[in-house]
This record gives sequence, structure tokens and C-alpha cells, in this order.
Amino acid sequence: MSTPPTNDRPRPRLPWDPPEHFEKRIPEGDNRERLVCGRCEFIHYQNPKIVAGAVCTWEDRILLAKRAIEPRKGAWTLPAGYMELGETTEQAAQREAREEACASIEIDRLLAMYSVARIGQVQIMYRARLLSPDVAAGPESEDVALVTWDQIPWEELAFPTVVWALAHFHESRDKKDFATYANPTEDWARTWPPKKPPGV
Amino acid sequence: MSTPPTNDRPRPRLPWDPPEHFEKRIPEGDNRERLVCGRCEFIHYQNPKIVAGAVCTWEDRILLAKRAIEPRKGAWTLPAGYMELGETTEQAAQREAREEACASIEIDRLLAMYSVARIGQVQIMYRARLLSPDVAAGPESEDVALVTWDQIPWEELAFPTVVWALAHFHESRDKKDFATYANPTEDWARTWPPKKPPGV
Repeated sequence: MSTPPTNDRPRPRLPWDPPEHFEKRIPEGDNRERLVCGRCEFIHYQNPKIVAGAVCTWEDRILLAKRAIEPRKGAWTLPAGYMELGETTEQAAQREAREEACASIEIDRLLAMYSVARIGQVQIMYRARLLSPDVAAGPESEDVALVTWDQIPWEELAFPTVVWALAHFHESRDKKDFATYANPTEDWARTWPPKKPPGV
Repeated sequence: MSTPPTNDRPRPRLPWDPPEHFEKRIPEGDNRERLVCGRCEFIHYQNPKIVAGAVCTWEDRILLAKRAIEPRKGAWTLPAGYMELGETTEQAAQREAREEACASIEIDRLLAMYSVARIGQVQIMYRARLLSPDVAAGPESEDVALVTWDQIPWEELAFPTVVWALAHFHESRDKKDFATYANPTEDWARTWPPKKPPGV
């Protein structure tokens, strides 16, 4: 069992990584170290980022997208991505479905909210219905697929949270009212590479 | 009826506002305008921020804190604040209760998630139990109070989302399992200055 991909591998420099002339310092009136520009004193507050997405269905099929970009290029995921300013969480999930899978969706309800503290993310996943089965790969996807539960390529899923969201979706399937799921504490939730969770 | 305080009044310069030598530009490979440092090309990605908090109770009383800082200094609020890196949403809500009201709380369940798109916030509110009624004003509060439902100072509440969370808390009071509340669409939700919502 190796480590999930989001955890501790050195990662390539990302566009939002601060330049080297930013230094860690506790600004006046604050109680935490922040990144401060050594040239102009700009304080670069970093807060957790919100990832919004959805388990989107057409009849008994679930929409998956094959990642065309790192991290986890070539692995399958649910349409999801960073929420932008000016959006609601629902709008962000709808935009990601459109961008990654050319999919129009109608939000059903909030499925799950996961904190992934080590990478500074909060993932907000909805249950949603596709308005049509016409889906296609967007620029960040190599492929898209509408799969039945038994066709899910568990070992080729991109991130632990994709496994979590699918398992929670399955558990919620016949429920109209249910409490939003949070980080699962069961052993299967930490298995890597991913496997089909037991009992689903 | 005036405008809620979070909406369109000019606000003072905040520590995380970028300096004037940052310019709006669409970076290569992106599809949105971002703020870019005109000196070193650092891209200052701005994403929605997460506010985490809780409706905390001791028996039939609800914990409120009187704000000692702007915005809305002197108005009453629920303990809540910006989530920091390295935390889960539950931990952020617990830390805010500790910092603002010297309160130890146990999270019960997710009560509500509100998108406040105009100010780039997602507010995540829990239902929580105080582990003791010993509460006191922290550095960002002028005062704290444990109030019954009938004692809530509706007209002196700090933000629309405080009204929303209290109303949703009241609605959920006898429920163990319920769907997470989202932005209310009723008229009372936009009334300002705030009033006690009808029927609660």
C-alpha cells in the first residue's frame, strides 16, 4: 500500500507558489507566521481553498472524467475544482462540470464536505442530475464516461476524496434527507491505491 | 430598510488588500483576470475564504459575542472566523469559539453552509455544545452572553448570516438528522436592520 498522491510527494512548483523573496514572519497584530514580500511588505495571507464538485448522474450512470493534467494525469475523477470569487458553491460545482465534462447539471443537494488539512483544502461535493447524457472531454480532461456502479474503475481513481464521495453517494442513494457526510474514519478510506470500499 | 453591512459600503483598507503596484491581467494559460505584482510577476490568486463558526448551546441558552473590532464593532455575533491552513472546518469552529468567547465546545453536526458571493466567503456553521458555561470575552470581543431564544437581540445582530444561522438552528432544534441548510430565499433573510424572523 503506497501513499495517496496528495500527501507527501514533492510536487512541482505551482503558479500560486510565492516567489523566493517572500519570507515567513508574524505581522504586527497577528499571531501566526505569514508570508511577507521582502520588497514591498505585502502580506500574502494563505487560507484553505475550496474545491467544489459533484457526483452527477444520468439514470443509473455516474459521470467520471479522466484527468488530462497533473496531478494524477490519466486517472479518473469526479468533476470538481477550485471555487472562484463571485460564485456560490453550487455555481462552482456547475461550472466545473461544464468545463471538465461539457455537462449541464442540476444540483440536487449537498452530499459531503471533506477537510483535507494537509493540503489546505475543503472539498464540497454535491449530488446532481445531468440535464442530458451528452457529455464530452473539456480541456482539462482526456476522456469522460458515464459508468454504472459496477463499472467504476476503483483502482484508477485519482484521489482518496473521489473514493469517499462515491461511497457516500452510494450510501445516500435512496435517501432524500440525510446529514452531510464528512471525512470517513473507516480503514478503507485510507487504502492506497484505492479499492472498492467493502459493502457497497 | 437599509443595506446589510457586508454589501456595498466602502470598506477600510484591509491587511490582505494587495498593494497598488499589483495589476489586473490574465496570466498565460489562464482564462480569468488575476492580480499580478508589477515588479516580480507574482500571481496573487484570490479565492473565496472560508468562515467557520458554530451555534453553541448550554442547556437552552445560546452563546453570543459582542464584536470589539470592525466591521460591526458593538454588534452581536456567533463565534466564527476565517479558517486557517492546517485545520479542519471543525477545528476552525472550535478555535474561533475559544478565541472569541474562551469557550470549549463539542461539535454536534453541520448546521448550514452559506455562500456570500459578493464578499467571496463561504460560511460553514456547526451546531455545538458548550462543555461548560464558563465563557468570557476574548481579545476580539467586548462581551459574551448566554441567552435564551427570547433574549436574542435581533436588531443588534452583526450580519445577515447570523440571523440565518440562528433561524436555521431553531428549525433544526429537535432534529437529529437533517439536510444542511443553505442560503435562505425568504424575504426575512434580506431584511436590514435585522428583525426576528417570522414564525420562530
